[in-house]
Amino acid sequence: MITTKSITNLKKLVKKVKKTGKTIGFVPTMGALHEGHLSLIDRAKKESNYLIVSIFINPLQFSPSEDFKRYPRNIKIDKKTLKEKKVNLLFYPQTDKIYNPDFSTFVEETKLSKKLCGKSRPGHFKGVTTVITKLFNIINPDLSYFGQKDYQQALIIKKIVRDLNFAVKIKIAPTIREKDGLALSSRNLYLSQKERKESKSIYQALLQAKQMIKNNEKNPKKIINQINKIMVSNSTASIDYIAIRDANNLEEIKEIKGKVFIGIAAYFDSLNGEAAGKTRLIDNIIVES
Amino acid sequence: MITTKSITNLKKLVKKVKKTGKTIGFVPTMGALHEGHLSLIDRAKKESNYLIVSIFINPLQFSPSEDFKRYPRNIKIDKKTLKEKKVNLLFYPQTDKIYNPDFSTFVEETKLSKKLCGKSRPGHFKGVTTVITKLFNIINPDLSYFGQKDYQQALIIKKIVRDLNFAVKIKIAPTIREKDGLALSSRNLYLSQKERKESKSIYQALLQAKQMIKNNEKNPKKIINQINKIMVSNSTASIDYIAIRDANNLEEIKEIKGKVFIGIAAYFDSLNGEAAGKTRLIDNIIVES
Repeated sequence: MITTKSITNLKKLVKKVKKTGKTIGFVPTMGALHEGHLSLIDRAKKESNYLIVSIFINPLQFSPSEDFKRYPRNIKIDKKTLKEKKVNLLFYPQTDKIYNPDFSTFVEETKLSKKLCGKSRPGHFKGVTTVITKLFNIINPDLSYFGQKDYQQALIIKKIVRDLNFAVKIKIAPTIREKDGLALSSRNLYLSQKERKESKSIYQALLQAKQMIKNNEKNPKKIINQINKIMVSNSTASIDYIAIRDANNLEEIKEIKGKVFIGIAAYFDSLNGEAAGKTRLIDNIIVES
Repeated sequence: MITTKSITNLKKLVKKVKKTGKTIGFVPTMGALHEGHLSLIDRAKKESNYLIVSIFINPLQFSPSEDFKRYPRNIKIDKKTLKEKKVNLLFYPQTDKIYNPDFSTFVEETKLSKKLCGKSRPGHFKGVTTVITKLFNIINPDLSYFGQKDYQQALIIKKIVRDLNFAVKIKIAPTIREKDGLALSSRNLYLSQKERKESKSIYQALLQAKQMIKNNEKNPKKIINQINKIMVSNSTASIDYIAIRDANNLEEIKEIKGKVFIGIAAYFDSLNGEAAGKTRLIDNIIVES
């Protein structure tokens, strides 16, 4: 595996690979790799013949009050993992090489990115779309992989690719879960033992919502109420949102119909019991009604 | 010359050309081609071996009160001109193919674009940088050419290329002028005979400013006053701005030093005498002091 921190060097390497006609797969990550990332890598390996992974904790997508500083960093272990996975190239840039001191250009999606997580984390998706634009321009991949756990992010990436005519094809891969159903996330490391136990209620609530739809419940409000009940009675988490939306555009719906997104965002915080606490977890399922 | 309206088709053509290893030069235009555009095309032909010109009047860079509707359209003549110039490919897309009805992604430079023309035309540069990002992603040129007349625009394009890591190299070509000094612009067509005569005062004022600097004038305010005097006494134009700035970043300067930008923007309007009238002309020179 080649490892490079240099944008210039990476561009040169990519140019060489492109000349051989190989299909470049790209998995952007913030490191602290878990089975969720590895499933993206496995899929990318199958569908491309040169695999690039980036590790970059993007400060632009964290607000000042968020967890940029304590976000888990395990570069040594990550490198070992990626080598074992036979990734071809690891791009591991320094922050000040991605953002020059006078950096002043931003890419913003203005509809999808204002909903759900975008409401709770203003500027977050603008940070994501800006860094992804940069990475796409540097790497020029044929395929790029995103996890369904961050469904809204994946939809937004698809949207900027379409709106700005990027040549890359975006693939969304299924959420990987712990045995008890908790969606894998680097942020799960923040949870106390008690919170970790409680956190499985998120997926349990999603499954119950799915069951309600299978049982022909058509009223999103009733389902949201039920999710809320499960969350409240099984965890100390404070809920950011529980949402049932059109899975294509995350627009609100009055009736369950077609492909439906069911999403939950909740804050866990055993440290000091503040409402908007330290660990924000999200999860979702897509249900065809 | 190949002419295509189709993005998909253009992408295919570009892919073929790329495979031959040719250097792609790209001149984006809004049509109504004049000697200014042709000088960009001549330069691009020299420095590349496959030349693409686009003609697209970008609605996103006009505010509702501006001249989008009456902007000159001469596609037949333009095509003939480009053929004679032996341009390889003309990209002439339809508006609704560039902007889908649900288009929602924008590229914005946030420092340079807030100054000078950006102040008078809010949203203008955001429209420019968004469409240029799209064109760069579609065409993937090695070189792209912009005129010095739109100096601020050219600087902003250079900035987004650097900030977002586009692979293209930006070239700025000298302003082409009428015999009396008026900078060529498609908007010159809007001028009445009287205004056309008066409009030469813009360049005359710029030349006098240059002379003052050569004569060792160090105070920007004195030079600006002199430009203002010339403009007021030789034309009915209402002045939008007269600016002397650091040519690298368009920051204000207290003393003439190094490479200096001297710019003028003025409105001409013989139709009804309104202050913020119909024809906005800009011009500039760069002076090394």
